[in-house]
Amino acid sequence: MALRPEFELIGSLFRPLAEGAPEALSLADDAALIPARCGQEQVVSVDTVLAGVHFLETDPPGDVARKALRVNLSDMAAMGADPAGFLLAALLSDRLDDGWMEAFHAGLKADMETFGLSLYGGDTVSTPGPFGFSVTILGYVPEGMALRRSGAAPGDDVWLSGTLGDGALGLLACRDDPALAGLAPEHHQWLSERYRCPRPRVSLGRALRGLASAAMDVSDGLFNDAAHMARASGVCVEIDRSALPLSPAARILCQSDARFLETAVTGGDDYELLFCAPETVRDRVLAAGQASGTPVTRIGRVTGPGEGQVSLRDVGGAPFRPRRGGWVHLAGGSGDDGSGGCSPGDAVENAG
Amino acid sequence: MALRPEFELIGSLFRPLAEGAPEALSLADDAALIPARCGQEQVVSVDTVLAGVHFLETDPPGDVARKALRVNLSDMAAMGADPAGFLLAALLSDRLDDGWMEAFHAGLKADMETFGLSLYGGDTVSTPGPFGFSVTILGYVPEGMALRRSGAAPGDDVWLSGTLGDGALGLLACRDDPALAGLAPEHHQWLSERYRCPRPRVSLGRALRGLASAAMDVSDGLFNDAAHMARASGVCVEIDRSALPLSPAARILCQSDARFLETAVTGGDDYELLFCAPETVRDRVLAAGQASGTPVTRIGRVTGPGEGQVSLRDVGGAPFRPRRGGWVHLAGGSGDDGSGGCSPGDAVENAG
Repeated sequence: MALRPEFELIGSLFRPLAEGAPEALSLADDAALIPARCGQEQVVSVDTVLAGVHFLETDPPGDVARKALRVNLSDMAAMGADPAGFLLAALLSDRLDDGWMEAFHAGLKADMETFGLSLYGGDTVSTPGPFGFSVTILGYVPEGMALRRSGAAPGDDVWLSGTLGDGALGLLACRDDPALAGLAPEHHQWLSERYRCPRPRVSLGRALRGLASAAMDVSDGLFNDAAHMARASGVCVEIDRSALPLSPAARILCQSDARFLETAVTGGDDYELLFCAPETVRDRVLAAGQASGTPVTRIGRVTGPGEGQVSLRDVGGAPFRPRRGGWVHLAGGSGDDGSGGCSPGDAVENAG
Repeated sequence: MALRPEFELIGSLFRPLAEGAPEALSLADDAALIPARCGQEQVVSVDTVLAGVHFLETDPPGDVARKALRVNLSDMAAMGADPAGFLLAALLSDRLDDGWMEAFHAGLKADMETFGLSLYGGDTVSTPGPFGFSVTILGYVPEGMALRRSGAAPGDDVWLSGTLGDGALGLLACRDDPALAGLAPEHHQWLSERYRCPRPRVSLGRALRGLASAAMDVSDGLFNDAAHMARASGVCVEIDRSALPLSPAARILCQSDARFLETAVTGGDDYELLFCAPETVRDRVLAAGQASGTPVTRIGRVTGPGEGQVSLRDVGGAPFRPRRGGWVHLAGGSGDDGSGGCSPGDAVENAG
């Protein structure tokens, strides 16, 4: 069954989703109309997910919808914002049919309920290329309370929410990468789900207002993103490799082959919060984690002023410096996809 | 020369554009941070332009940048909003090179200056498909003053800004359609430019606050869009064909072959304002047009309550009813692209 024309798609699938939101004007006008929230700042970002780049074309449509929203929700979490609504720019391919769109719609609807999000507007475009979705998300934070990347100070603790590397390892699982052949089915599946459906840490972000000195989400690999935060703050950071929180599945992989640890540290798609906070609020950070149902782990400290240097140390103290961080995947289990990632040698040296 | 990596593109091209806007946080955080404007409503919309769909892949990059902004600015105009800033989600193809991106950047920068727009944020994604740009635009209007589609009342005049059909006829010109072979080069070029670079009627939209009872922009063909406005307002509308404002180039074409008139009436990409206003404010509407430097023409009236019926009448009174409006192009000069547009017969009958 082919895809319905744009007007019908909007009328049958998207307009009902916008019904609860007066801002959307029933998707019948040229734009949404959003009342001012005096005393609050608006937090706005846009992120696109594209088939073959951010998700697999064969991923379940409901998961694609959730991912499109959640990578954006993760930006709200990083800023400590309460997400409020979004606009959806859909790039639709004629390889999609009505059944696909309906499942996508159901996933979108479920996450709108989970996260209290309104649909404000959007547009649809037909493309002969890969399909995808560009979400513009709008949220709010009390004036002056937004979390930023630039406030970390020497002496601060460095924290990470959840576990590290499940996104990048999950991509290998989704691709049925032979490198994961020995992994138990339940771990394989768990990792796949983590790749397909990130868990944005919105409640934790909100709970960290007034506590965290700097924050961001880890979408581009811990090593890379820690450098961004350190640079924005004018500091240098040391991360303790042995403190990095790993899921049971990731732990098994990293113990079996050190190259997986490298993937975990430099790979993307974690959507966890990386943040700094003064030592003096350690207990309050732990309490914020508990109150929001999100594990938080102290993984390092801000060692001094600097220009964004990040060192990752073993218990023994040997430094580990990937030549380039971010989006490094094990291609065919070789440990190096040729895209400028760390060489296997680097990883083996430090991951005993 | 290949395209620079994402971080370099953002650093070298987009960050400088965001420098004047504190909201953008130097594009160094996970989202933009926008202060509340108490007493104003925010107007937000998103529109995507894709190569091969909304512009030609060979169009000058500066024109592509301008079009990406201007189709969105036209939505601001339609709501009577003052545009303030935008987020840019770029789908980049490896067929683009640094030279292309720099020319795109220059076009973007020029229009940001022309329209007083700030760059708040964005993202870039590589695609193996057609390149394109999804712009989310944010503007403001004093509380309660937004123009809507739903306020037209029986007896109101129907108005159109600028001229009709240049966008759709301009597409034919850009494609060097043989149907336009007889057209003088200066008219050919003028139409091409109108297609490539719409003129959003932002000043007129602002001037119509408190005057227009309903408004929208004509992006999907006058006939189709008039029906949208009439339906939203619960009225029926009559448009006087002989009153339709045509540019010299469009007039020559419509006089030479009636099928061009059909393209003008049902084609897209005009980005003019279609609006209604009570008879009692006719002079003030004309003054608003003059003050904003935008020609406005009275093209019809709201004849009574209804469900969105639009009739287009000749001086003789014969009705003209395209079976389907919007995006009808003369393919190869045949007058019917097979996509469900009006048949040539329909047009010939009414356009003597």
